[in-house]
Amino acid sequence: MDKKQTLKIIKIGGNVIDDAEALASFLQLFSSIEGPKILVHGGGKSATTLAQQTGLAVKMVEGRRITDAATLELITMVYAGKINKTIIAQLQALDCNALGFSGADANTITSVKRPVSTLDYGFVGDVKHVETSTLELLLEHDISPVFCAITHDKKGQLLNTNADTIASELAIGFATQFEVELYYCFEKQGVLKDINDDDSVIQTITKSSYKKLLDAQLIFSGMLPKLNNCFHALEHKVSKVCIGTPEMLLDSEAIFTTLTIQ
Amino acid sequence: MDKKQTLKIIKIGGNVIDDAEALASFLQLFSSIEGPKILVHGGGKSATTLAQQTGLAVKMVEGRRITDAATLELITMVYAGKINKTIIAQLQALDCNALGFSGADANTITSVKRPVSTLDYGFVGDVKHVETSTLELLLEHDISPVFCAITHDKKGQLLNTNADTIASELAIGFATQFEVELYYCFEKQGVLKDINDDDSVIQTITKSSYKKLLDAQLIFSGMLPKLNNCFHALEHKVSKVCIGTPEMLLDSEAIFTTLTIQ
Repeated sequence: MDKKQTLKIIKIGGNVIDDAEALASFLQLFSSIEGPKILVHGGGKSATTLAQQTGLAVKMVEGRRITDAATLELITMVYAGKINKTIIAQLQALDCNALGFSGADANTITSVKRPVSTLDYGFVGDVKHVETSTLELLLEHDISPVFCAITHDKKGQLLNTNADTIASELAIGFATQFEVELYYCFEKQGVLKDINDDDSVIQTITKSSYKKLLDAQLIFSGMLPKLNNCFHALEHKVSKVCIGTPEMLLDSEAIFTTLTIQ
Repeated sequence: MDKKQTLKIIKIGGNVIDDAEALASFLQLFSSIEGPKILVHGGGKSATTLAQQTGLAVKMVEGRRITDAATLELITMVYAGKINKTIIAQLQALDCNALGFSGADANTITSVKRPVSTLDYGFVGDVKHVETSTLELLLEHDISPVFCAITHDKKGQLLNTNADTIASELAIGFATQFEVELYYCFEKQGVLKDINDDDSVIQTITKSSYKKLLDAQLIFSGMLPKLNNCFHALEHKVSKVCIGTPEMLLDSEAIFTTLTIQ
């Protein structure tokens, strides 16, 4: 059997998306990566800024936005409109042929509205299915899909879905056809042992060492869903999962966190 | 030589896009059309509403929006975000596989920023090139591209481009490979002889009768660029150009305006 082709799925968040210069520098790096690649972006701060301008109250619980109808409209504008199209235009200028996606586009990511339990998250979707056929077609033609953090329920409803989750679910969706590498990029060099010490990067986290870190309460709330997404991907045939600054994508000397099952 | 396949390019504007019920009914009709099809949408009123909410001044000259940086950001959010993704989600619910585009996506529509003469339109782009390859690939796979009225200059700048123009330029771009039919849909049955009489539809306008209508000052300002777009398309191998309500797409008894060269 032929060795499978490598597909890089790269999620950007934090300052890499919020800071225009950091974003421009990341996009230059992204456009220089050879082979099939998919970009996934968040965009939380921009949405919060616009919410404040329009007088919309922002409700966050455990790092997750409570998405009422007005908030969904706002994030659709910011994520799928402003941020996604700005990224696409910049990539085109760098001769990287990119095409913007929400999960509704080409029916790529179907999700179900999260059931109301103790908390009603509103229009938040948990991913149910990833349809890779159109994306594969585009990748074959050297076009890079760029995903914002919005999915749909296939019944006409757009839904807000965590960008980390979108990246890991896309990675899993492609894992049978490709050797998938999943990279979470932000402004830190990786998962830190001491949140106040940027040099305390944990370079390898295995499933068993992750449990120990959890028991020692060394993993903080913001990092928890990200790491769960990482291990979820590794358990579903994704070859490689890394967390760090964008430099980890090119520089072999870079320090970052690699997640492994064993 | 084989007869060329028909491609329908349908532009919606006016109340068909501003009224949620009219839009839903149009999308049902659109999804029932067989064969390759492309949708182009405007969305002026939504942008004006959000501009008012955020305290942004709306400047219009001869029906064209003056697009400063803040206005460009706003229409990118409204056109490419809110309206485009709402349409895509609704089409997916109707089992019409659609994919949203700005002109930056897959580098489909390149434009140049309109030069400043007596008037500075700001970030407004005049179409320079339409790249159909990715769109053809998608059409072959039964995916309908849905365009919002935003293009780019391939140097990283998004630009505001009239939706009527986008529709006619796309039609021209496809006219060598396809038998292209271009439909402009809005709430009126077509071009009216008397703007106060909805029953005064002019059913056929030829290039010479158009000149007579212009001389008699029977074509009003809003309709002028639309009709210029229509004749521009007909002069560049587009087979059929019609203006009317969405009903013209299905009902053979419908009354609408057909434009012809002779």
